[in-house]
Amino acid sequence: MATAQKLPKIVNGVNVSDLFTTIDAIKITPAIAKFKFRIHNQWQGASQNRSAVSEFYGAGQELSRPQPFVLEADEPAVLLGKDAAANPVEHLLHALASCLTTSMVYHAAARGISIEEVESSFEGDLDLHGFLDLDKSVRNGYQGIRVNFKIKADVADEQLRELVELGTGHSPVFDSLTNGVPVSVNAERL
Amino acid sequence: MATAQKLPKIVNGVNVSDLFTTIDAIKITPAIAKFKFRIHNQWQGASQNRSAVSEFYGAGQELSRPQPFVLEADEPAVLLGKDAAANPVEHLLHALASCLTTSMVYHAAARGISIEEVESSFEGDLDLHGFLDLDKSVRNGYQGIRVNFKIKADVADEQLRELVELGTGHSPVFDSLTNGVPVSVNAERL
Repeated sequence: MATAQKLPKIVNGVNVSDLFTTIDAIKITPAIAKFKFRIHNQWQGASQNRSAVSEFYGAGQELSRPQPFVLEADEPAVLLGKDAAANPVEHLLHALASCLTTSMVYHAAARGISIEEVESSFEGDLDLHGFLDLDKSVRNGYQGIRVNFKIKADVADEQLRELVELGTGHSPVFDSLTNGVPVSVNAERL
Repeated sequence: MATAQKLPKIVNGVNVSDLFTTIDAIKITPAIAKFKFRIHNQWQGASQNRSAVSEFYGAGQELSRPQPFVLEADEPAVLLGKDAAANPVEHLLHALASCLTTSMVYHAAARGISIEEVESSFEGDLDLHGFLDLDKSVRNGYQGIRVNFKIKADVADEQLRELVELGTGHSPVFDSLTNGVPVSVNAERL
């Protein structure tokens, strides 16, 4: 007797069958949930530097990309740079945006909620009095970040808010940025 | 009588004369130290999304780039993506690396300390038990990040550590990430 072939369940482009397979695998072997992400950065002079992104540890193994992804950074002219790339605090907003979006999309998929379109805007406030040592009562970092999500999905208005909370409630970058992360820094001679 | 023309002072590629001019201008008009950085993100389906980076407010004016910088995000195959770009938590490490490097280089320049080369490695620990709702005592975000700077500069060993502390003591992303930032999130229909 022929058995029916089971097709993978795809929601929002996410292979939900694989997602549940991963969850089941982690229940059996908890260690495969541990990941280590890495980058290597090189100064290019003045306001410019570049990160190579390739190796990471996850699912119980060392993994790498065939070619490293290269991420650039610079500063605009008013911050004494050449404006050849987004600056570090703009990269931080991208990290937050991309993580909130992917977290929402994956968790909506796991619940069978179809999303058609997602756009989001991010704005963060900085005051250079901290960075420039002019007033140490002013923090160096963002004083606050405002996020606006626009979503096209066949859900009720109340569910729109719940959808976005699937992002904020699961996103690694949102948690890292809102609750803080311990960062240890070592220095040695090159 | 001819007056001697003053050449700009350049250290580490940074125009230190412009840096001090900026500091003097902020002392007279504190409001020009206020910046607002912005990005706009669009979901591309599944694990992929893209940010456009152009407009920002700073130095008392609205500014923008002639063409937006485009930042991509994806996930590797083990995280159900197509691995077309660095993932959100890798972008977060790049934001931190680029900001620490630029902050160190600028503040060293302001003190007349020449730096020849800078490289840095970043590694962060994530455990998917949080993200996957398998164990809510495990945080969603990075549990810790380790940073190793390698620097070539004509300074004593003790000063090497002080150099890196110019980065950690001034970097907007380091402060944002280690101390946390309030993030408000709104949702509306597209």
